[in-house]
Order: sequence, then structure tokens, then C-alpha cells
Amino acid sequence: MQLNCDLGESYGSWTMGLDAQVMPHIDQANIACGFHAGDPVTMANTLALAAQHGVTIGAHPAYPDLVGFGRRPMNLSAEEIIASLHYQIAALEGMANCQQLQVSYVKPHGALYNDMMARVEVRSAIMQAIASYHRPIALMLQATPELDSHRREAESFGLAMLFEAFADRCYDDDGKLLSRSRPGAVHDREKMLAQVDQLQREGTVTTVGGKLIELRADTLCVHGDNLEGVQAIEAIRALVDGN
Amino acid sequence: MQLNCDLGESYGSWTMGLDAQVMPHIDQANIACGFHAGDPVTMANTLALAAQHGVTIGAHPAYPDLVGFGRRPMNLSAEEIIASLHYQIAALEGMANCQQLQVSYVKPHGALYNDMMARVEVRSAIMQAIASYHRPIALMLQATPELDSHRREAESFGLAMLFEAFADRCYDDDGKLLSRSRPGAVHDREKMLAQVDQLQREGTVTTVGGKLIELRADTLCVHGDNLEGVQAIEAIRALVDGN
Amino acid sequence: MQLNCDLGESYGSWTMGLDAQVMPHIDQANIACGFHAGDPVTMANTLALAAQHGVTIGAHPAYPDLVGFGRRPMNLSAEEIIASLHYQIAALEGMANCQQLQVSYVKPHGALYNDMMARVEVRSAIMQAIASYHRPIALMLQATPELDSHRREAESFGLAMLFEAFADRCYDDDGKLLSRSRPGAVHDREKMLAQVDQLQREGTVTTVGGKLIELRADTLCVHGDNLEGVQAIEAIRALVDGN
Amino acid sequence: MQLNCDLGESYGSWTMGLDAQVMPHIDQANIACGFHAGDPVTMANTLALAAQHGVTIGAHPAYPDLVGFGRRPMNLSAEEIIASLHYQIAALEGMANCQQLQVSYVKPHGALYNDMMARVEVRSAIMQAIASYHRPIALMLQATPELDSHRREAESFGLAMLFEAFADRCYDDDGKLLSRSRPGAVHDREKMLAQVDQLQREGTVTTVGGKLIELRADTLCVHGDNLEGVQAIEAIRALVDGN
Repeated sequence: MQLNCDLGESYGSWTMGLDAQVMPHIDQANIACGFHAGDPVTMANTLALAAQHGVTIGAHPAYPDLVGFGRRPMNLSAEEIIASLHYQIAALEGMANCQQLQVSYVKPHGALYNDMMARVEVRSAIMQAIASYHRPIALMLQATPELDSHRREAESFGLAMLFEAFADRCYDDDGKLLSRSRPGAVHDREKMLAQVDQLQREGTVTTVGGKLIELRADTLCVHGDNLEGVQAIEAIRALVDGN
Repeated sequence: MQLNCDLGESYGSWTMGLDAQVMPHIDQANIACGFHAGDPVTMANTLALAAQHGVTIGAHPAYPDLVGFGRRPMNLSAEEIIASLHYQIAALEGMANCQQLQVSYVKPHGALYNDMMARVEVRSAIMQAIASYHRPIALMLQATPELDSHRREAESFGLAMLFEAFADRCYDDDGKLLSRSRPGAVHDREKMLAQVDQLQREGTVTTVGGKLIELRADTLCVHGDNLEGVQAIEAIRALVDGN
Repeated sequence: MQLNCDLGESYGSWTMGLDAQVMPHIDQANIACGFHAGDPVTMANTLALAAQHGVTIGAHPAYPDLVGFGRRPMNLSAEEIIASLHYQIAALEGMANCQQLQVSYVKPHGALYNDMMARVEVRSAIMQAIASYHRPIALMLQATPELDSHRREAESFGLAMLFEAFADRCYDDDGKLLSRSRPGAVHDREKMLAQVDQLQREGTVTTVGGKLIELRADTLCVHGDNLEGVQAIEAIRALVDGN
Repeated sequence: MQLNCDLGESYGSWTMGLDAQVMPHIDQANIACGFHAGDPVTMANTLALAAQHGVTIGAHPAYPDLVGFGRRPMNLSAEEIIASLHYQIAALEGMANCQQLQVSYVKPHGALYNDMMARVEVRSAIMQAIASYHRPIALMLQATPELDSHRREAESFGLAMLFEAFADRCYDDDGKLLSRSRPGAVHDREKMLAQVDQLQREGTVTTVGGKLIELRADTLCVHGDNLEGVQAIEAIRALVDGN
């Protein structure tokens, strides 16, 4: 079980995330590529930090929406999605290559990620984009009860996949994330660690309604926005390594 | 003697330049990378057009100034220039690779080009950027009486260089382009062809003051903004091929 | 019956629309405010052109999507819509005031316009934005069979309204614009003029299926993107003035 | 003696400055207008906060350079400066009017401020912009030994002026701010308060070289980027109010 985290989300003079404190504890860094966050200097610095800690690098492309931080659904055509992903992945990869690093996977950001999970035409455009990229690269998406179906879609494009689960988010009875507007949507420390333990040992989560659902995840999404988040990451790291 | 032209300078719904009419007649396409012009879809289409006509591809990076079309000097630090060039070159190169194409050279755009020619610290940052790019790539700059000195600077960075001259612009007695605000700054058709012929056969230009200056150029910069420009390119092409 | 047209949609070095040729023939100029098109210099020039021809000025605000020209639906919150409209209307109005001009109405652009017609929560946020603007200003929206219901919504906000019909677009049997992907979606010259005549004399349109639908329009939307469009505007102008 | 502070410099999801903690202690808020910082929602919230504390509002326009935070000199033409200032001032003013507030003055930001102090053609374009704004508005600039000359320039445009001094910055012997790269450029708490006291009581500063220079300032620029800055503002407030 790996730990992945969104990093490099500063922009120019604005700082976001405690990247230097998070990087030592994670396995995979999802690095912003300039469309929702991450200017070129920030990207270069984030890559250097990842290199220093031997962290695997993922591209974290988004809709072109800086002021909305890529969190607002936008209706891009398949052609626009494909070209935008090629551009963002390529920009990060070339910069990574300048530091003798490689980009291993793509994890779409924010609304693009949500649209990928919810709409087959967006997911298909994203898969087409990665499949037509000039060298093999994996796609990271959410582990859900539709995992086998998503895997078959990816295989039809010849894509390798990484499935992620969420450490601190409560799942609903359909295996989706419980909406943040609902009580209990975000776990406290104890429940979070219990969920991580269960995911790692048994490949399941217990939903908000008490249902047991199978979730075969390769990696856990963690958050390093503030000190509390960093401490949670350290606790998860210790648990995962101990298991 | 090659012909190079700035292309891919449309942006979203805005069209600029007669790319489809220019591409058949040139050797080298300087393709905008998104900072002054050229969104991802435009870049993909421009690369496809270059491929169709067997045209060599150059990255045409710029200051981040869309509304000013990269024509306004901006005081970027060396770190900002290096990261911005890596980002833009990488974005274009990855997209080119997706179409089995390579980027062969970098020609800075607009104010970045002018600052490169005028200020040694900008030129040095640009050379450092290209030298630290992850694979060898040439730098295109203006052929001037300082050519040998520029070549020595480039060699200290281990860079290959391409020198360009201008077909339709009158040179001043220092071997610089005569300012566009001065009468006679832009040649008519006849003078332009005479200048091209002289550049190709003798490696010289005759300046505004009648001086003969040596200019050893590898490539001629031509402009395809409008129909007249396209016709000029055709005439230059015919002349260059006939010589 | 007035004629309104989208103008001021150039951006920096990119030109769009034949504004100088269109302005003499229209009554109302919908001027872009910088979010989908229209930089400050373009806005100042467009306002000056409107003043010269005594054309009424409308703000033409949009989603913040320059590369998509404001044509892609984006999920903005009501708070974001309200603040974005205040910002855009205010920017244009202050610039208009600097030329002793006033902004008379607001016509949302592109996807924001479509979302306004299709989704009550977007329409409501737009109405709230204009109602909370610091001085009275009208809202222009599409004349449809829901006109009375839209008028009641606007009245609940205390808003004045302008309803527009389309000269060159075929209507479907529900009184909506026939999708551009369908045959016959855009009228030829003869059908366009017949539709204008019928709208003006009888307040009706004949739909794609031959149905007669009441459409009480205050203004006709015309397009000046190219020479053919300008000629169509001149023909509509002559017809409307003659009636 | 008033206190002014740059506020509203967050952007979308990125937070900058402790606005809520600073606002109770200052007299004048320089509010970002969207070109270097400050999206429409941030602007609306900052205006509401200013209203709550009865703080006077100033527009804080900048070069169009989000990633560089308006800190990099850009060569804008006078026409571009004028239109960009009209746009930014108008956007803020209309939003202020929506909350029954007025914009009282303009203080250019960052590189635009520095260029205004250093280059007469930039200063002249800025004065022309404010003079041609549709209602009277003051210009805030730095109090220097050239104050009388700046006042005469402003008077030739019919402009009211506000002159500011810096609380925490050491002045060089020419009455300019000592470069931040020099030792002693930023005062410690004690020296800062001594400088404020001397500015208020005697209208002078003691320079890095021990020279006494006259500086007649209407307002003091203070900084609320972090907790230390907020505490400094509280100390300056107490001192200024006590004198």
C-alpha cells in the first residue's frame, strides 16, 4: 500500500501545502502542471524535493481554471481534454527529465477527476489522451465497486492503472465518497487509522450505513494542507509500514 | 539557406497567421508554446501541419504575457527564465513526440528574443536553460556583427546555434535591424529579394547607410501574417531554391 | 425593433469581428468585459466607436474562460456568478463613464447565456447580481415561450428586461433555437429576412416543423464576424427601418 | 498620520495576508483589483471587511502579471497603462458602490509603483489615467525629496495627492528606500517605532548614513503578511494615536 499526495500547488507568490514536511512520508507525489496551480519555478522546486526523497512522480493535470483551482466542472471536448493532458503531462515530464526523473503516472485533479469517475465520455477522453501519449504511463483513478469495469475500459486502451482509496473520507453505501456536506464525511484520527488498517489488511471499507464493501486499492490518497494533515500522514505511514 | 517562420500563433477562438498556406513553403516552423499564443489544441494542429509538409520544428517560447503577445519586456529572474523555457520547450516536445516528431531548436519570441540580443544576462539565462535541457537542442538567434562573440558564449555552454537574418527588414550601419519607426525599415518586394540574394550568395547585407556588412546566416526569417506575406514567402522560396 | 450585436471581442494582438463596419448599422453593442474576450485597450476603443455612432452600450460578461471564449459551461457558485458579474459590469461601466457614456443593459455571453436560459439557479444568480448592482440596469435574455415566466422572475428582483430574438437561426417546435448540428439550423438570406419581417410585423416565428409560435422580441441579435454577416446586418437594418 | 496597508491579495483558493486581523488597526486599505491578485469574490469580501471597520478604500492596480504578483517591471505603453488603470479602478469602484462604499485614492502596486517613482513617462501615464477617470480620485505615491516636484506634476493634471512613508524600511542618503539586499534595510521593532515617531513629530527620517532628511508624509505604509507584521501594526497604531 502506497501513499500519494497532491503537491506543488503553490503559484507564484502564493504558497499552498506543507510540501517540504509531507514529502519525506509519501511514496507518490501528484504534481500540479500549471493549469489549476503550479508555475514553472514551483514545478522545478517540487520535482527537486521529490528527487531528494526518492518519491515517485505523477502528473496532476486539471481543467484550465486557475481562479477556481480546477474544482469547477468545465465542458471540454474530447479533443480539448486530449490536447490539454498531453500539454500538461509533457511539460512536467520534460522538466522532470531535466532533473533525471521520470513521470510514472497521471492522476487528474479536482473536477476533472470527479468528471472522470462520473462520466464515461470524460473517462474515455482521458484514457485516449494517456494511450496516445508517446510512452507508457499509468492512470490513477478511484477504487470503487466499478473497479473491474474501469479496468476493462483501461485495458481496451492498453493502459496500466493505479487504484486509490481515501484514508480520511467516509464511504457511502454505493462505495462512493460521502458528500462533504454530510455529517461524518471526514473521519477523525481514530476512524481514519481504522479505515486504513482495514483497507490494507482486508481490502474492504465499512460504509456510513455499516455495509462492508470490497475496495482493492494500490495507494492511499492523503492530504498535507496543514500541520494536522502532516501529523495524520505520519500516523498513516507508521501504520502502513508496521502492517 | 533555410526559411523559418513563426506559426501556431492562434489562441482558442482567435486566428492569427495563414499557417496552412505558409507551411508548404518553409523549412522551419517556430511554434508558439502557450505563453504568448498557442493553446494545446492549436499546438497539436500546428504540429500535424508541420508533419504533413516535412517541416523542422522549433519551440518558440515567450514571456508569460498573453494580452501583450509576448512583445513587452518583462524583468524575469534567471531562475524564472530557465524554468519557463524548460516548461514551454517540454510541453511542445512532448506533444511533438505524440506525433512522432522532434523539436530541433529553440527560437525565443518577441521581447524575450530582443532582450536576448540586447542583454547578456538574459542571453546567458536562455543558454543555461537550453544547456540544462535534458537532450541537445540548438538555439536560434540573430546573425549580427557580434556573431563570433555569441558563438563563443554558446560554445561555453556546449550549445549548437542557428543564426538567422531577416529578408524584409533594412539593417542599420551597426548591423542591427533599423527601427520600424524609421522610413525604409521594411523593404518592398524588389529590395527584399535583392537582400535575400545577396545574403545567400555573398553572406552580406547593404545597410541603410550604404555600408556592406558581413552576415553569415543559416536561415531567413519570413512572415506569413497575410496574403502579401505568403506571396513574399513564395517568391523568396523560388529565389533561394534557384540559387 | 432594435438590432444588437456582440462587439469588442478582440484580445490583445488578436482581432475578431468587423466592429468598425458593424457599428454604424446597429442600436445596441454587447461589449466584452475581459473574461472571454476584450482587454482594456480593446474595451476603450470599442466604447469610443459606439459613442461615435450613438449606439447604446450593454455589458457582455462571461465565465472566466479566455481559451474557451466563454463557450464552455462552468459550474460557478451563485456567489462567484454575482461577484464576477459585478466586476465585469463595473469595469465596463467605469470605462464608459470616462467617455461620458452609460451602460444600459447586461447580456450574458456564450455558455453563461445558455446556462441562464436552461438553469433556474444560474438565471436567479444573474438576476440577483444585476438587482444588487448599485444602479438600475436591464437584463437582456432570449424571447421564448417561457417569456412571461421569465418576466415574473425578473419582476420579483425588480429588474427591467429586454427580450431578443435571432434573425438567422431556425427555431424548433418548442421555441428554442434549433441545434447548429441540425440541417437548416442557420437560415439563408431570404429565410432570415422573412423571419425578421414576421417577428417585427406579427411577433411570431414559424418553427422547423411549420408551427407558428408567438415571440415578442424587443431586439434582434445579429452577427458581424465576417463580410457576409455585415451585409446581412445591412439588409436587416433596411428591412426593419422600412417596416 | 494615517496607516495604509495592501489587502485583498488572496486569489481563488490561495490565501495571502491576515486581512481580518489587520483591518481593525488601519485607516486605508489598498485593495488588489485582479491583475496581480484579488479575484472578484476576494474583492467583494475585502470591501465588506473594510466597510465593517470604517476603513477608507484605495484601488491597488498593477501590471497584468499574476504569476509574478505584479512585481516584475513590464514595458506597457501609455495607452495600455491608462486603459488598464481605468479598468481596474472601475472594477473595484463599481463593486464598492454595490456595498455603498467609495474608492478614495489609487496606489499603484509593486513594479508599477516602483516604475512610477523612477520613470517620469510611467508617472505621467498614471497621472493621465487618474485625471481622465470620470470622477476625482487621489493618487498615493512615495514621499521623497522630490515631493514638491511630484506635487507640481500632479497639479498640472489637477490631481490630489497622498504621500506615504515606510515605517519599517531604512532610507538611504538620497531619501530612497535602502535596497532589501543591503544590511539594515528592514528595521527591527525599536528602530521602526523610533522612525514612525520622528516622521510624525518632526516630518523627518534619519538615513542609513545618519543624515536627517525632511519627509512630509500623509500616511504610513504597513505590512500585515504575518503575525509579526500584525503586532507591529498594533504597536504603530498605539504610538500614532498616542502622539
